Amino acid sequence: MSSTFGTIFRVSTFGESHCRGVGAVVDGCPPRLELSEEDIQTQLDRRLPGQSRLSTDRKEEDRVSILSGVEDGKTLGTPIALFAPNRDMRPSDYTAMQPVPRPSHADYTYKQKYGIRAASGGGRSSARETIGRVAAGAIAEKYLLQSFDVDIVAWVDTVGEIAAPEMDPSAISRADVDRTIVRCPHSATAEEMGSAILTCKEEGDSLGGIVACVCRGVPPGIGEPVFEKLEAKLAQAMLSIPATKGFEIGSGFAGTRMRGSQHNDPFIVKGDRLGTRTNFSGGVQGGISNGEPILFRVAFKPVATIGKPQETVDF
Amino acid sequence: MSSTFGTIFRVSTFGESHCRGVGAVVDGCPPRLELSEEDIQTQLDRRLPGQSRLSTDRKEEDRVSILSGVEDGKTLGTPIALFAPNRDMRPSDYTAMQPVPRPSHADYTYKQKYGIRAASGGGRSSARETIGRVAAGAIAEKYLLQSFDVDIVAWVDTVGEIAAPEMDPSAISRADVDRTIVRCPHSATAEEMGSAILTCKEEGDSLGGIVACVCRGVPPGIGEPVFEKLEAKLAQAMLSIPATKGFEIGSGFAGTRMRGSQHNDPFIVKGDRLGTRTNFSGGVQGGISNGEPILFRVAFKPVATIGKPQETVDF
Amino acid sequence: MSSTFGTIFRVSTFGESHCRGVGAVVDGCPPRLELSEEDIQTQLDRRLPGQSRLSTDRKEEDRVSILSGVEDGKTLGTPIALFAPNRDMRPSDYTAMQPVPRPSHADYTYKQKYGIRAASGGGRSSARETIGRVAAGAIAEKYLLQSFDVDIVAWVDTVGEIAAPEMDPSAISRADVDRTIVRCPHSATAEEMGSAILTCKEEGDSLGGIVACVCRGVPPGIGEPVFEKLEAKLAQAMLSIPATKGFEIGSGFAGTRMRGSQHNDPFIVKGDRLGTRTNFSGGVQGGISNGEPILFRVAFKPVATIGKPQETVDF
Amino acid sequence: MSSTFGTIFRVSTFGESHCRGVGAVVDGCPPRLELSEEDIQTQLDRRLPGQSRLSTDRKEEDRVSILSGVEDGKTLGTPIALFAPNRDMRPSDYTAMQPVPRPSHADYTYKQKYGIRAASGGGRSSARETIGRVAAGAIAEKYLLQSFDVDIVAWVDTVGEIAAPEMDPSAISRADVDRTIVRCPHSATAEEMGSAILTCKEEGDSLGGIVACVCRGVPPGIGEPVFEKLEAKLAQAMLSIPATKGFEIGSGFAGTRMRGSQHNDPFIVKGDRLGTRTNFSGGVQGGISNGEPILFRVAFKPVATIGKPQETVDF
Repeated sequence: MSSTFGTIFRVSTFGESHCRGVGAVVDGCPPRLELSEEDIQTQLDRRLPGQSRLSTDRKEEDRVSILSGVEDGKTLGTPIALFAPNRDMRPSDYTAMQPVPRPSHADYTYKQKYGIRAASGGGRSSARETIGRVAAGAIAEKYLLQSFDVDIVAWVDTVGEIAAPEMDPSAISRADVDRTIVRCPHSATAEEMGSAILTCKEEGDSLGGIVACVCRGVPPGIGEPVFEKLEAKLAQAMLSIPATKGFEIGSGFAGTRMRGSQHNDPFIVKGDRLGTRTNFSGGVQGGISNGEPILFRVAFKPVATIGKPQETVDF
Repeated sequence: MSSTFGTIFRVSTFGESHCRGVGAVVDGCPPRLELSEEDIQTQLDRRLPGQSRLSTDRKEEDRVSILSGVEDGKTLGTPIALFAPNRDMRPSDYTAMQPVPRPSHADYTYKQKYGIRAASGGGRSSARETIGRVAAGAIAEKYLLQSFDVDIVAWVDTVGEIAAPEMDPSAISRADVDRTIVRCPHSATAEEMGSAILTCKEEGDSLGGIVACVCRGVPPGIGEPVFEKLEAKLAQAMLSIPATKGFEIGSGFAGTRMRGSQHNDPFIVKGDRLGTRTNFSGGVQGGISNGEPILFRVAFKPVATIGKPQETVDF
Repeated sequence: MSSTFGTIFRVSTFGESHCRGVGAVVDGCPPRLELSEEDIQTQLDRRLPGQSRLSTDRKEEDRVSILSGVEDGKTLGTPIALFAPNRDMRPSDYTAMQPVPRPSHADYTYKQKYGIRAASGGGRSSARETIGRVAAGAIAEKYLLQSFDVDIVAWVDTVGEIAAPEMDPSAISRADVDRTIVRCPHSATAEEMGSAILTCKEEGDSLGGIVACVCRGVPPGIGEPVFEKLEAKLAQAMLSIPATKGFEIGSGFAGTRMRGSQHNDPFIVKGDRLGTRTNFSGGVQGGISNGEPILFRVAFKPVATIGKPQETVDF
Repeated sequence: MSSTFGTIFRVSTFGESHCRGVGAVVDGCPPRLELSEEDIQTQLDRRLPGQSRLSTDRKEEDRVSILSGVEDGKTLGTPIALFAPNRDMRPSDYTAMQPVPRPSHADYTYKQKYGIRAASGGGRSSARETIGRVAAGAIAEKYLLQSFDVDIVAWVDTVGEIAAPEMDPSAISRADVDRTIVRCPHSATAEEMGSAILTCKEEGDSLGGIVACVCRGVPPGIGEPVFEKLEAKLAQAMLSIPATKGFEIGSGFAGTRMRGSQHNDPFIVKGDRLGTRTNFSGGVQGGISNGEPILFRVAFKPVATIGKPQETVDF
């Protein structure tokens, strides 16, 4: 296991589906940042499954506690431990450990690697693991916004074959995204996506999709060549999320079909700084942010847990 | 700068275009591996630009020396330092430092981050930086092949709009790849790619493309959830290569348009182990190798250095 | 802050004196180790201050919970989060934040570094921080004993001017150590130490001392030259404990007054392995364990919190 | 092997006694520092053995080259590779690999760990390994002096039973130290030490000693609790040097015999900052520098290579 990410702002997550709970430790958060449990809870509530008929039917409610690192509403510069208890430590809604590995789950590989696996629900490969990430991310996001005016918005760009039309990434707000439960800021597309998901679910099947993200206001100079280039660490972070199969920055895979003369982003003067007219680079050149918005997209495979009967063998 | 990759087998690279040379230090290579400079030179020769009219016209020749860590043809378990001298420390084929940042190069971001940049040729963002990686990779590859029978083949899958037809990744050999200078194992496609590159070059322009890679024989159990999942570290490694814009594993972005019932890989018995009938997972489940071939693809943008005049501004 | 130690077995601690609690996350513990809260509690109980008149009068009781990583009494190979709640989050036994930095405490340096500090009790520099270490150490110790038959015993070797007579480190058991509250296995010395501590305490003053440790059964080959030599990592670990001022291995500082011909440990045959007749090396040669007992000593300064009035200035 | 030290300013060393050479890569050195090979050579010349009859008779001469990271006399912010060739790759002054492990050398442990060892001279455990450290240290020292006015002086404090009288660490300059080949700034003691070393050498024996070091001008706030406290990382660094057996900071082991009321350093006003009247803390409180001089001492065992016949067994 390697459950730690980052060098200076360092996040470690812990917790399975059916132990006492899940959480994270953030070490290296700057001191004197105002921080409350509510700041973090807001993001956990956005993450919460079961908000609609579209997603899993389990009703979860995750209440986060700050165990350390904050006093009188301010960070101390010391490790911030975050914890959200699991409600059902031995749930009845999961049946006993199946004698067969579920297709495209982590059952088989965990068994091979560790010789043991959590009783049910996927253990560390479960989506519950992301609670620690969301909680830690809420702190990072607050700090970046307050100290550098960096704002970050992610949205669902495609679901299955349904893709949102091209949108101006500099104009999408989080409020736009949160308007629908599907989290697609283009309302008509969101509606279409919602229907598709419901239909598919009724058929006992599942869909994949692509999430897009923009980080606005990132100052030039972020990223450490050659192995910790900004896009390299973003790619690692994104591909560490369960069910992800791809990452692209800026023009990404589509950019491979362009010519250099189209793809090169001409420098222009933007106020008191240099900027680029186009942004096929996705805000990164030579592994270092150039001051333009960071743009990237992440591919999620169709959810592996489906209602249909499937083929497998026993261990 | 963060020029080190890996924890147990750890690679650090160094060197710019016009200093004394470029190289790498490999720390953590197991002892008693037979290793000669020729083992490494073979890979550097494959990397060598200027082998044909298709690529850059500069004639380079990179001779690698093993400075340490090997005695009597065997590794000692100590750091292996590798070095390839630059031939032209102050070359005449690069003009003096331009007063303008070249579009979609690292000139601007390096200047912003370091307040200084190498005189020409891109410094650490130059393709010469990859010499250290290739040299270190040659050692890793030899060890993996000898000790675990892992073999790794990468090839050019698309160039611009030209894509190779679907090929069986278990059947492609390195000899197939090396048959053409374009490194596409499908001969007819390779020819078409070669023509396209030449035509484009004559027009003073450049093309992008996609490289595919298969790792065969990787045992189950490799990958450290949750932040060092196998695909996450592969994504970091790939996106740290100059000019890359995307990474996908297994079904990748195309997989987002499939349904769970199609995408899930059914387990079947393969000899004395479990395997999967399809391999949309790309050999990785829950961040851990499952014994199937690891399959991934990497997007390269069109080369930023082109012959056509371009628009920019001065610093 | 850098609250993480270790590469493969990695410990992160968190918690101040007066937040919700203190704890640790152990990432990389091997799977299938039998582990209960009782295993850890035993060590926390040994650590507990207030067991006698000799130490601080505060009555603490630390109950540890395993939050994750263990199921049905066995480790899963996933991160093990450990937590011990603080009993008094806003205690009355500490007065309000003093306007002056206490001499030889961390008040001044924390204020300089973080611009803020925990209200009282020393925050992360408090001895309560060691609860996380003890809890994590209990797991490491259990694993080492079960899997490699390594056993580790530490004891108080000197208190102020009072030193235990030379003892055979291969013969001291933990039961010997725990027989007295002073934790010195030599009973007569322990009694003398106890009296000295009491007398000193009555005078409103404090004493320092030296702790000795032996690790028996460590196999040859542990330690990673050159920067993670076994003694180097031990030194880092020991000097990270509050109030420590020195570390020595084997002959240590006294060894500097010996001659090479006396100090060199002659190799002899010990059963089916090579051993050494003497052990001035302290079980380590070239930074790597040689199979002999690892012997080291750690200097603790006199406790900085004393009853006597002292001189200081305000911030 | 783990041949890398540091996080932001990161040093990796490589090289054995009889490969092509020894060196280091410094990654993370700030850009725009003036740096020449002469800056580094000066320190290598100070390190050079064979400057007098006192030390080993081998005549070495180590010429360092900067392979990368510096252009036009200024650092680029990119990795700085440093290299000093070995003069004798297959020397005649070492006899063939002995069939017996030399007492208190690393022969046995390297053999156990790696199953192979460098033909002679100790490989990575040889004192030649320190060439890379000295070269990297010369860069660190220059940067610290130029940018923060930190100056660092180390000297020989004891040789065997001969100890320099107490000296004011704030008054010792490097010139004082370099006045004698023994590197003890107290001339009378230096002479005595020199005689003792010669006498001992004639007897085919060797002596140990203690090196003291002061770092002046270190600003408050350096050190990362809890596991990378300043004294903890210093201890790791020092104990990673060949032949070291102990480390102490400030009052060290002697401080364990003091009382808290003597040992606590009273705060006083020193110009525009707070300082302490005494410095038993050694410039560090709570693991963080407090602005006072950092004082530490390192114990070196008597050199293991001696002229006298010794007892050993074969492998």
